[in-house]
This record gives sequence, C-alpha cells and structure tokens, in this order.
Amino acid sequence: MADVAVLGASGYAGALAARLVHRHPELDLVAVTSRSDAGRRLDDLYPQHRVPLVLDAYDLDELGPVDAAIVAYPHGASAPVVAELHERGIRVVDLSADFRLRDLPTYEEYYVEHPAPQLVERAVYGLPERYREDLRGADLVANPGCYPTAAILALAPLAPFLTDVVIDAKSGLSGAGRAATEKTHFVSADENVTPYGVGGHRHTPEIEQELGVPVVFTPHLVPLDQGEMVSCYVALRDDRPDDVGALFEEAYADEPFVELAARPPGLRDVRDTNICRIHVHDDERSGKVFVFAVIDNLWKGAASQAVQNLNLMLGLDETAGLL
Amino acid sequence: MADVAVLGASGYAGALAARLVHRHPELDLVAVTSRSDAGRRLDDLYPQHRVPLVLDAYDLDELGPVDAAIVAYPHGASAPVVAELHERGIRVVDLSADFRLRDLPTYEEYYVEHPAPQLVERAVYGLPERYREDLRGADLVANPGCYPTAAILALAPLAPFLTDVVIDAKSGLSGAGRAATEKTHFVSADENVTPYGVGGHRHTPEIEQELGVPVVFTPHLVPLDQGEMVSCYVALRDDRPDDVGALFEEAYADEPFVELAARPPGLRDVRDTNICRIHVHDDERSGKVFVFAVIDNLWKGAASQAVQNLNLMLGLDETAGLL
Amino acid sequence: MADVAVLGASGYAGALAARLVHRHPELDLVAVTSRSDAGRRLDDLYPQHRVPLVLDAYDLDELGPVDAAIVAYPHGASAPVVAELHERGIRVVDLSADFRLRDLPTYEEYYVEHPAPQLVERAVYGLPERYREDLRGADLVANPGCYPTAAILALAPLAPFLTDVVIDAKSGLSGAGRAATEKTHFVSADENVTPYGVGGHRHTPEIEQELGVPVVFTPHLVPLDQGEMVSCYVALRDDRPDDVGALFEEAYADEPFVELAARPPGLRDVRDTNICRIHVHDDERSGKVFVFAVIDNLWKGAASQAVQNLNLMLGLDETAGLL
Amino acid sequence: MADVAVLGASGYAGALAARLVHRHPELDLVAVTSRSDAGRRLDDLYPQHRVPLVLDAYDLDELGPVDAAIVAYPHGASAPVVAELHERGIRVVDLSADFRLRDLPTYEEYYVEHPAPQLVERAVYGLPERYREDLRGADLVANPGCYPTAAILALAPLAPFLTDVVIDAKSGLSGAGRAATEKTHFVSADENVTPYGVGGHRHTPEIEQELGVPVVFTPHLVPLDQGEMVSCYVALRDDRPDDVGALFEEAYADEPFVELAARPPGLRDVRDTNICRIHVHDDERSGKVFVFAVIDNLWKGAASQAVQNLNLMLGLDETAGLL
Repeated sequence: MADVAVLGASGYAGALAARLVHRHPELDLVAVTSRSDAGRRLDDLYPQHRVPLVLDAYDLDELGPVDAAIVAYPHGASAPVVAELHERGIRVVDLSADFRLRDLPTYEEYYVEHPAPQLVERAVYGLPERYREDLRGADLVANPGCYPTAAILALAPLAPFLTDVVIDAKSGLSGAGRAATEKTHFVSADENVTPYGVGGHRHTPEIEQELGVPVVFTPHLVPLDQGEMVSCYVALRDDRPDDVGALFEEAYADEPFVELAARPPGLRDVRDTNICRIHVHDDERSGKVFVFAVIDNLWKGAASQAVQNLNLMLGLDETAGLL
Repeated sequence: MADVAVLGASGYAGALAARLVHRHPELDLVAVTSRSDAGRRLDDLYPQHRVPLVLDAYDLDELGPVDAAIVAYPHGASAPVVAELHERGIRVVDLSADFRLRDLPTYEEYYVEHPAPQLVERAVYGLPERYREDLRGADLVANPGCYPTAAILALAPLAPFLTDVVIDAKSGLSGAGRAATEKTHFVSADENVTPYGVGGHRHTPEIEQELGVPVVFTPHLVPLDQGEMVSCYVALRDDRPDDVGALFEEAYADEPFVELAARPPGLRDVRDTNICRIHVHDDERSGKVFVFAVIDNLWKGAASQAVQNLNLMLGLDETAGLL
Repeated sequence: MADVAVLGASGYAGALAARLVHRHPELDLVAVTSRSDAGRRLDDLYPQHRVPLVLDAYDLDELGPVDAAIVAYPHGASAPVVAELHERGIRVVDLSADFRLRDLPTYEEYYVEHPAPQLVERAVYGLPERYREDLRGADLVANPGCYPTAAILALAPLAPFLTDVVIDAKSGLSGAGRAATEKTHFVSADENVTPYGVGGHRHTPEIEQELGVPVVFTPHLVPLDQGEMVSCYVALRDDRPDDVGALFEEAYADEPFVELAARPPGLRDVRDTNICRIHVHDDERSGKVFVFAVIDNLWKGAASQAVQNLNLMLGLDETAGLL
Repeated sequence: MADVAVLGASGYAGALAARLVHRHPELDLVAVTSRSDAGRRLDDLYPQHRVPLVLDAYDLDELGPVDAAIVAYPHGASAPVVAELHERGIRVVDLSADFRLRDLPTYEEYYVEHPAPQLVERAVYGLPERYREDLRGADLVANPGCYPTAAILALAPLAPFLTDVVIDAKSGLSGAGRAATEKTHFVSADENVTPYGVGGHRHTPEIEQELGVPVVFTPHLVPLDQGEMVSCYVALRDDRPDDVGALFEEAYADEPFVELAARPPGLRDVRDTNICRIHVHDDERSGKVFVFAVIDNLWKGAASQAVQNLNLMLGLDETAGLL
C-alpha cells in the first residue's frame, strides 16, 4: 500500500481524487489539505464522496511520510508546492497547467511567470495513451487539461495528416470550478449556452503541442454538471489513408479506457468513468473528417486520469481502482 | 405618464421591475440605481431585458423629480431609503420585508432592529386580492414576499376554517437572489433538491399574519430558474362548508390574475406572468384539503406585483402593462 | 383586422403562433386546428399560452372565411393543404420545409416526392432581413428552418467571401418537436449533449441555397427547452474586407430584430423574442472569422418569424405584435 | 458464484440491476431479457452500464439453469412470471408492486385482479432494515416501491407514536419510467414542478401497511434524472419520547445503508448509491416532527435494494457489490 496525500482537496477535482484514492485497493489516503476549508471534514463538504477525513492546512513538515501526492491547486500556485514535494522525493501528479507546456515562453504568454522552470523538462505529460512508457516510474507528472485530454485522444490518430483543425467544445459547469461567480450561478447557466475564451483559451497551446498543428478551439458552457464533448472538424492531407476508422481501431485496440462507438456519443455514456468514447465520421460530402469525443471532465479530464497516472508511476495495474 | 425610478435594479427582481416599467404604456422609467454595479448599462448586465439605461449610484438629490419608486434592496437596507423617499412625497413600493410585518417585535425577531419603525403602520400590504381598496392611492406599499404571495392566495378563502396548516414549498434558484454563493452555484443546485430554512424561514410570520393561524412552512430549492409552488395540506374546522371549491370560485371570480385550475398546476403554466394558478383538492380519504398554487417568483412574487400595486396607487388600470 | 387561422396548432410552434396571433393588435385568431388533438381546448393543452379556443379537425369547407393561415404541419403533409388554401386565395405562411428549397431535386433528395411542385416557384423564402421587398404582399411564404434562420443571419454579410464554412449548432429540446420519443425523454436529454444528423442534416441544403457555398453543418442537442446557437468558423477569400465588423454593422443597422453584440451571446439573451443576436470575432491567430448567433428556435426560428412575415404580407407594421 | 437472470432489463431499473449483478463479485449475470427490445445489445441501449449481453425474449424453457432472478416487469405482468419461476425453484426478487401488499382487496383496489394470489403470503417485503431476518434465505421477495422505501425508513422509528402524517415527495423523471409520454418529454418536465397522483397515489397503501397509520402522500415531479426526497410533517402522541433523534440513532446505528445527517440532505448526497440519508427536525414551534429522507430511486428505490435483498437471500454479505 502506497501512502498518498491529496492537496487542494476542497475543489471539485481534488475532492474526487481524494475519494478515488480512498477507495483504491492499493492506495492509502493519508492526508487531505485545503487552503480555504481547513478544519472542515471532507464528508461534510462533499457528502457524496464519503471520505471521513478532516481537511488540514498544507504544511510540508506536518504532512508526514507520503509516497505520492496529487496536487489540485490553481496554475501558478501549484508549481512551488510541487517543487517542494519533488525535492523531498515525493512522487507528484500535478493537476494544474504548470508543467504541461514544454515551451516556457508559451506557458508564460498564457499563464504567469513560471515559478519552477527548472522542473519543466522533468515532467511527463500524463496522457497514458501517448506516454505510457514514460509514465511508468515517473516522479513528476503533469496531468492534462480536460479539453486537451478529449481533443488529443480524438485527433491523435489523425495527427500526421491534419491540415485544418476546428474544435468546438461543450462543457458542463463543474469544469468552471467551485468558485461561486456570476458565470457559475445557476440562473446564469441554466437554459443557456455561452461560448467563452473565444480566440484565446489557454488549452489551445496544450492541444497544439500534442497534435503538432495549429488548431481553432472554442469551448461553450452548457447547462449540466459533469461532462465534456469535443466536436472536431478537420481537413486532411491528400495522402491520408482511405480508411480513417482503421487508424482509430489500430491506435486504441488495447486501450482500457478508450471506446470507439458506431454512433455519435453522448456525455451520459461516460459519466463517472475514466473512459473517453469516440465516434469518427468520414464525411464524403465535404471531404472533411468529423470526430466526436466525450469524457467526464472531473474523471478522465482530471481526477481519475491522475489515479491512472499514479498507478503507472507506482508500478500498479493501470486500471486499479478505476473499473 | 408617471415618472418612476427603480432602486436596486441590478438584482433579479429590480431588473425585471425596470423592464416592466420601461415597457409600461403609462409609466416612464427615468432612473435605475445600483450599489454594486453603478456605471454599467442595464442592458449589458441583463441583455434580455433590453433597458437602455445606465445604472447610477443612488443619491436622492441627484435623482430628479419622480412620482414613484420601486425599491429592491435587502431588508434592513431598504427602510432608511424608503423613509427618505416617503418624506419627499414620492410614492414607494418596497420589495423588501421591512414593512410587511405589522408587529414590530416579530419583525425584529426574524430580521434586524427596524430602521424606520414610525412608518410601519403607514404601509399597506401589497396583495391586491386582499387589500385592493387600501392600495388605491396609497403612498407606501410593502410588496409581499414570494412564498407568502402564493401561500396566502392559496389559503385565504379557507382562512376562517383552518386548524392545521402544512405548507411545503418548492422554488427555483432565482428566488435565492443574484449573489454567487455555494448554494447558488450551478453544480450545487443541478440534479438536486434541498430543504432550507427548516423550522424558521422568515416568510412564516408573514403568512401567519395574513392567515391568522400558525403554519408549518418549509421551502425546498429545486433545479430551475423561475417559479415557485406551494403544496398546502390543511385541516379545517367541523363547520367548514361542504363545497370548498365554491369558496375559491367566489373569492377569485373577478380577479384578473388568479386562475382556478381543474388539474394540478405546473410552474411552466405561469412563467413570465403576473398570474397565480390554483388547484384545490378536497381529499375525502384523509379529510384534509390540499391546495396547490404556482406563481413566477420574480413576477407575481416580486416585480410584476409591484407594478400591479403601482397601477393601483397611481389610479391606473390595475392590469396596465401586465397582460 | 385580418382573420387568421393556425393549422397544426397542437405542436410547439403552431401553438405559439396561435398565441402570437391571438394577442396581435391587428390580427384576429379565428380558428385553430389539430389532427391529433381535435376537440381539446388549446388552453388546456398549453395553459401558458392562454388561447381560449377549441382545436378543430381541419376541414377547408368548415374553416369559414379567413384572410391568412399559418400552417404548422410536418413536411410532406403541409404542401397539399397549402395548395388548397392558396387556391382559395388565402395567404399562407408555411412553417414546414415544403417550399423552402427552390431546387426540386434537392428537396426530393432530402425529403419526399414533392406534393405540390407547381407552387415551389411561387413561394417567397420568409427571411425578412433578405427578402423584405418580395415578402410585402406575397401570398405564399416558406418560413425558414430554425437553424437556417440563425446560420444565414450569422453569415450573410460574409457570403461573397466565404471559402470554407463549419457550423456547429446547439439546440434545446423544443426543436425536436412535441413527439414523445426515446430522444426527447427527459432522462435521455438531461445532463447530456449529443450530435445528430451528422453529415446529412436536412437544413444543410437550405443554408447552402442562401449562402451560395457548401457548408459543414452539425447540430447538437443540449439539455434545455428553447434556444439555439450556431457557432460558425469560416475562412474567407483573400480579397475580404479588413473590417468584417463593419460589414455586419452595415448589413443590420436598420434591422429591428437583429442585434450585434460586443461579447459572445447566450441563449437566454433572446428567449421569448423575435431577435437574432450576433457576435463576430475576427481571429488573427488562425486567420478565420468566428460568428456566434443565437435565436429562440420557437420564436424567430418559427412562430414569431411567421408573424413577422404575415405583417409584411398584409401590409402591417413589420414589428406589430412582436415587441 | 450464483447464476442470476434479470428479466425486463430494458427498463431503467432492470438495466441498472443487470449492471449491478454483472459487476458483483459473487454473482454471475447469465441472461437479460426484454419484451420490447429483444435482439438488441444491452450496451447499445445503455452504453453507460457496459453490460455486453444481448437481450433475449423471455422464455422460461430457454432460460437455462439459474439460481435467482430479478424481475422488473410492470405490475400485473410480473406475478404470472414470478409464479412460474418460483415453481421451478428459482429465487425471485420482484420489482413490481404485485407482492408488496399483504391485503389482497387493497391490492385489487389500487392495481388489478391479482394474477397469483396464492403467493402473496409467501412473499417477504424486501426492506432489509425491517425484515432482515425474514429475508435471509427467502425465496420470494417483493422489492419495495421507491417512495415507500424512503418514507418508511424516514418514519419507522416514529411509527408507534404517529397520529397525523403528511408526506410531500419530490422525484426525478427516471421514476416515471422509460416510456416516452407527454409527461416524460423534456419540454414538459424542464423548468417545471408538477404534483401527480393527488389523493390516490398507489404507493399510499404500501406506506400505510408498514407504518400502521393513515398517511397523506403527494409526489411531485421535479426536473432532474435520478433521486427522490420525502419531506414528512408528522404529529406524535403525547407519550412520545422527548428525544426523537435518539430513536433514530438507535434504530439505524448498525445499518450499513442508512445515514443520519445533522443537516437537511440533498438528492446529490446519495446519487448512484444504495444509501438512504435522513435528517430529523423536532420542531418546537409547531410541536410537529419533520423528517427529510433522500434516496436514489433507481438504486435504493429499486435495483440496488434488489441486490441487497439477493445478497440476504443467497447468504452472501449484505453489502457485497454495493459499496
């Protein structure tokens, strides 16, 4: 049994990570921390997760010996803590954006001055379907963003052939985080759809880094809790294979958490799972290929993918605690 | 044309009141004020209302001559401003709770020390179906709470016979106001139902004042925007009339904004209207009477009822601007 | 006052059309018909519309003298009735797809054998923003589809320059009609997003007819009632104007029902209105232009646009009954 | 490993039961049947359940040897099949109402002529918190209705003292079943609340049977998928204990699936669990006791409670497959 702490466990993704670790057959949840809710019980804040621990304020010296940590802090706030944990030899899965972008200037253009640039090269991008071997035994993993997870899985098999990429995404409100704002007020979101981050969403460079081409990416808020869809409309080079479906089947044949569907998927198909479900449509009429992919943004888009990464880092069965 | 100002127009009820006055054939909306959003255009904050005015900070001396004001401030904050306006001879409809309770100690038990106790007796309770004659020409009107509006209209015809009253209410999120809180976050309210104010909701004494009997009143948040239902389960004295339906028909025969329905009503039946729709079921099996009433909490429960009151106060047709 | 009948008034769009005609200051609603619900009162079926008429089975000889009719039948079923009414000299707004496509083979590819091909040339496409002059005094108007209304208004100002068009649309459930199916079941749609009509939605040729270029068009069901958004990602010819915003301002400066917004719009901004609200983003990063447009699919996408057309056909103020 | 068949697995409760059996560590799902969807794969109908079996038409002779069956048929249709299975020595959990009411005339007043009256006495009412000992080794179990499950757990500790009982219930749409009707259409239920079964809901006698007193019971549809709340307002005899909270603590101290909460519960607290969460409020002001209880209607209200019962019937750990 490995001892695991979850830092930032009062947010949606952190709390779910705590639950998944708590129920994991080979992990022990030994501490949960929170800057805003220290002193409260986690099962008071989130009765549905049934994690009977008290949230502590984070203090590395008080943390006790842990083998690994999941850090669910906002970007910028995460890197210094990650660095501190890393120095102590604690394996870390970082849910923030701080170690996802390998290009420092790009990170600093979209986010802030990097608080721990020396670690950027050290981090492995935590998408097991692409970096599984690097993740085995890794000590610092940058968990992908939710939209990038879906978009990269949707388009990776086509990456060598992509020439024009439009990604229209739809996400529920849990993706906006726990902060109570005008945008997350029920009355603002209910019976509504709104695009946001138009022309400059921070997940764009992350998707581009992994696909190797420029992309148009526009997310929309839709009135639901958990779940995220990317609808991708792409043009391919002339030397594209005739059978794009076969490309996907080959790419994902052995993946435990990727499903190929004969029909367009719905968000409900993957709610509360670590699964990405994908439908490919080769559109003769337009000559484009459409790919629709769905994930649960809090699971495969954050907390359960973190556990999948942790499993790989610790040499456990990749699917442990996730089926 | 009467000149009307709406104070506190950045909240849900105030903004809707501004829209209703703006479109009213015999009222002129001359000013809208807001403490939190002064300087913003109201149609930027609420595009759906299409009121092309800029929100000012409230300043009585800058307000210019107005004939009447609708004040949509929180309780406690409202009374001093109402007093000020009243002193200047401006007719006021107050949407807060400050002048609803005729018994000062009860007000102070449920709310705060009363900031303008001298005016309490002056105010008319703004439920036209009960106080129409008092409202004609009144200069200070306390607009009823949303739950009391529905509950009192649901039970008033039975008031002389009530012996035991249970009111279970359901309300959408707009009733919780515009403040962004954990409770109003989409993720908290979506796919959820939660009782609140259990055993001590502030609308209880207001309902009791008008019905003349103690009541059990428990509201529940339900995942929708506008709309409110009261489900009333009441026992009656033995000398109750046999035909309770006839009581309701008689009471509401000439009311322009009360509908009696042969079937249980739904919230959608009255959305965006000033109508209260009521269904009465005389339950032989239990000997009780069930009454279900629905209103739109922002309309009949607040803003449109305020305009109905204003119509009466100014000698206009009661239904002007409301059909 | 013109006498108007609404045929097919038991569906969502027909019922709303009946309400709008009923409240219209210069129209008289003289009859409502329904194949499935004849004998029921319309205000029993739709209390919220408050139209106190009984639905009749349709029978031209029983219809009595009417000046105009709005026909809300399914495609294929509509044309024969429209032809019959037209022969009697009754002006018709047809909400079905039967007279929208000027190219008969295209109609027959996407729908059925045309039941009244001789009238296809006679019909005017009922988008006032493009065909206003033709609509004045017209006797047969094909009301546009909901998606085409939004998509054409979103892209018409750019039409001469379009080279590549991707339209990703999102619609609430009222767009799927009143039929109770697995797809429209609350449990299927709630907390879900699903693409449909992938690669072959029937509104595609209608949009292409008006824009003059091929388009990729994919609608998605989102969990809400009324409202529709088109998110358009388009590439333009090199001779495109530098200032695309100015194109839109010029095109829509005098339009009573088109709004240009500085920020991305939301569905709530236009609910229960005849308004199309549009935001244009000229994306330097990708070189594409993004256009987001929202309408209420039952209003501007169907019933209120029908009334707008009727106003023009009958020589009334175009905005009568719609503000 | 016990071999289990689920009959009627194309409905919401049956499909979930199939999933729970399929994932159960000590049960083998050997067959799933459906009258309406025979020939379809269950994971095509319900991708989220991931049960890779084909639905068969039910035929006892084709069923093969099974140790137990969960029957999810409508009332009236269930009893004959249950009788047939029982005769073959197959243990049965029946999700219908057919064997819940011990009084035959009451059953026939609320439902239909009983198709297998000889078995009524044989059946054990499947609420483990009350009938655990009878359920161990039982061969025919009547799984409780969803509302009765919540209502009985909410009030059982107070049963000896109850004098007046009002139960106001709220349920999501999955409780209305998979049939696509006007009532279950998204547009009917969204942004709505509607009471139904007013004065005569079929779950009333079932609740009364277990509590031993007459009850007023009125359910309401609320716009969400899974979840159910009962809000109970009860009067007690004068010899009631002073500390009603202690009654509940004593009654449920050792129950694995009942939680007592210090605050009013929400539906989200128990979604996708077999848990009933209860909050008791002793209301000094009115002298009544309020009890609020929430369950997931498809889980504790149907499928997971069926598995809990199956565990007891088969001598397994009661919580197996349910944590």
